[in-house]
Amino acid sequence: MSSEDTNPRARRPDRGATALLTDRYELTMVAAALQDGTADRECTFEVFGRRLPDGRRYGVVAGTGRLLDLVADFRFGDDELATLDWLDGDTVDWLRDYRFSGSIDGYREGELYFPGSPVLTVRGTFAEAVLLETLALSVLNHDSAVASAAARMVSAAAGRRMIEMGSRRTHEEAAVAAARAAYLAGLDATSNLEAARRHAIPTAGTSAHAFTLAHASADGPDERAAFAAQIATLGVGTTLLVDTYDITQGVANAIEVAGPGLGAVRIDSGDLGVLARQVRDQLDALGATETKIVVSGDLDEYAIAALRAEPVDSYGVGTSLVTGSGAPTAGMVYKLVEIDGIPVTKRSSHKESPGGAKSAIRTARRSGTVVEEVIFPTGGTPPETPGLSATPLQIPMIRDGEPVDDLPTLPESREHLARALVTLPWEGLGLSRGEPAIPTRTITGRDR
Amino acid sequence: MSSEDTNPRARRPDRGATALLTDRYELTMVAAALQDGTADRECTFEVFGRRLPDGRRYGVVAGTGRLLDLVADFRFGDDELATLDWLDGDTVDWLRDYRFSGSIDGYREGELYFPGSPVLTVRGTFAEAVLLETLALSVLNHDSAVASAAARMVSAAAGRRMIEMGSRRTHEEAAVAAARAAYLAGLDATSNLEAARRHAIPTAGTSAHAFTLAHASADGPDERAAFAAQIATLGVGTTLLVDTYDITQGVANAIEVAGPGLGAVRIDSGDLGVLARQVRDQLDALGATETKIVVSGDLDEYAIAALRAEPVDSYGVGTSLVTGSGAPTAGMVYKLVEIDGIPVTKRSSHKESPGGAKSAIRTARRSGTVVEEVIFPTGGTPPETPGLSATPLQIPMIRDGEPVDDLPTLPESREHLARALVTLPWEGLGLSRGEPAIPTRTITGRDR
Repeated sequence: MSSEDTNPRARRPDRGATALLTDRYELTMVAAALQDGTADRECTFEVFGRRLPDGRRYGVVAGTGRLLDLVADFRFGDDELATLDWLDGDTVDWLRDYRFSGSIDGYREGELYFPGSPVLTVRGTFAEAVLLETLALSVLNHDSAVASAAARMVSAAAGRRMIEMGSRRTHEEAAVAAARAAYLAGLDATSNLEAARRHAIPTAGTSAHAFTLAHASADGPDERAAFAAQIATLGVGTTLLVDTYDITQGVANAIEVAGPGLGAVRIDSGDLGVLARQVRDQLDALGATETKIVVSGDLDEYAIAALRAEPVDSYGVGTSLVTGSGAPTAGMVYKLVEIDGIPVTKRSSHKESPGGAKSAIRTARRSGTVVEEVIFPTGGTPPETPGLSATPLQIPMIRDGEPVDDLPTLPESREHLARALVTLPWEGLGLSRGEPAIPTRTITGRDR
Repeated sequence: MSSEDTNPRARRPDRGATALLTDRYELTMVAAALQDGTADRECTFEVFGRRLPDGRRYGVVAGTGRLLDLVADFRFGDDELATLDWLDGDTVDWLRDYRFSGSIDGYREGELYFPGSPVLTVRGTFAEAVLLETLALSVLNHDSAVASAAARMVSAAAGRRMIEMGSRRTHEEAAVAAARAAYLAGLDATSNLEAARRHAIPTAGTSAHAFTLAHASADGPDERAAFAAQIATLGVGTTLLVDTYDITQGVANAIEVAGPGLGAVRIDSGDLGVLARQVRDQLDALGATETKIVVSGDLDEYAIAALRAEPVDSYGVGTSLVTGSGAPTAGMVYKLVEIDGIPVTKRSSHKESPGGAKSAIRTARRSGTVVEEVIFPTGGTPPETPGLSATPLQIPMIRDGEPVDDLPTLPESREHLARALVTLPWEGLGLSRGEPAIPTRTITGRDR
């Protein structure tokens, strides 16, 4: 973990059209809408979450950058159309020419969100905008779930170094996106090499138990041989995994082989708090006072917080992070809210939400602490906020089908989130279950 | 939902090398192992889960077919190597020539597994086999988590039609794999179009609330116009979504527009049991006795089971399915168990498991009901099972780096699982939390 590089190439690998990463019903709706003219009506769709996952105080918007790239590749080529032989010819012809030509606005990546926040607003004809439902939700629901969990872990770690190493516990492509979301949320590095290639995220990692076990001979284990081989290749600044056999012996072997200049030791099992203290004492007694301690193994935000008083220098987090720590999806929905200027809303159940396109501001005291989020009809007058600053939360992302210039980069979004988190009232960063950190006030368009 | 097609093309789209879908530490281990000769030692790695998710009675192996394809593409081309500039030249040269040349055996897709089951066995040199850790775990942990949850839902549905529609609640590529795992587990169709292209899975889907809302005018909603447009395009056999406004009026509108030959109505919100009964009565009273009822909206295996007595014809399942219904990852690990014929195992903690390559059989009574799983040292004598049949659970998958002929197809694996589930003792199919459906007996190699 001690050596790490940042790859400056942030390019995506070549990939095919993304247009089939969607649900069949979007295409059948387009087909029916083309026949009766609904296809061309001007629409506004909004992405929002009705609530935060149980007990969470805030959510973190993530995935927008990925989504904008995927929308650019949302085309129906011959290969895609060949698989849609159940569609009528007019619809196939329309899909062949499809490219999104509308506009997208939204909360920037790394922005906090709360129940009802209009995190993405898609404007265009019904047919062109309805097609993006599944892709938009897949990306935002996954990435925001991971970033929201990761941000809590970063808070819990209180400045200590954190490495994302959860690739093995999630789908192989979701792993790349999870590494990106984790980095956005403030983690320092990832184990995932594709995330380095695609998103220029620093990587970390040195060895697994298999490496130590692989140095066994007919005479038994040979941990020292494994450590020596690793140091010969990765240098004395590397991190040695010391809990394959006996941890105390492992630490002794590590310092014997590496000397007191060893970069770090990693502990991956057992009572991490107790072991960290023992290992710290042992390292100090051996003169390895600068050797760091990395812990890993089923850590979530609560376990990270519980280790705050222990001599831990770095956390490796995996399963809990990539699965959203109990909330594996953000639960956002993509809803038609306006058609030809007419506000519309489903109204058969408690799922009701106000129709009409919505704008949002967040108010703050002079100290910077945020007070509330206010959602109001787009085009209406923003509410008065006497004595408070008011920051608009939506930024333009796509205009006439083209990404706007100067969209935030991933490092910029990462900094934005770090700044946003410190604006929360202090209880907003609590790990215990609670209400959203700030209330949301919705001014409906019904008064208009 | 009423019309559906099976696309016979099961090809994967072109995609790049998969070699970077892995963790940095695998490459640093290869680098160190190349320097001291460990790279060439003959190894056996095994994939297994130490336990099932809390309270689950069985797990379902899924993802193997995808994994074998991804292993074939696990190559380091110039693009990949360019991002690994922190590696030494010898390692880069070795990676450039890399292709897996060992063997892989495992539980076939659709096989049940239990704690400790050796679901995948990878044999090769240390360097070539250690590289596959992350990819193998990502695929198996994700797909098995989804299939394991899906199989419970299929049991709960007791033969009623089920449609997977969870793409929007998971990463866009995980969605394709989830659709595949759900089909393996017995669901009838998916909403996901890429899953149809890649895996020849039947698709389903007709319309969302947005389609009905999009027919609103300045005079207000016009549900009938939406239904008429849908029927004009998709035919009277289609499924109309009736809960956008008032469900009773929606059903009346649906039959008025479609006539009593309407294929189905879908209810997506509210108390689905109560609504299904009301809607059934209303449909019958309108003469639409053959019109089916599809329900969707936050269904999990418990909600599906609770609707068993109601007049529901089809279930649409989403969030809960693609997130593994509380267990979003199967928690399998990839462990070195043998090197140059020497059994090895980590032994510093409770994570201990017996070293040495393992084989497995499952015993059954004459009735077909399974009795126990027995894990024993590979190469050793299988245990006697008087009065019981004994089925070996591992099949060859890759030999000398090449997939063996006649690997099970996805439909074959789907049938295999359906047959396997009926061999469980009756309590094994219970939805409540419990112990594994059958015990696992492990005969260790320590006696050898």
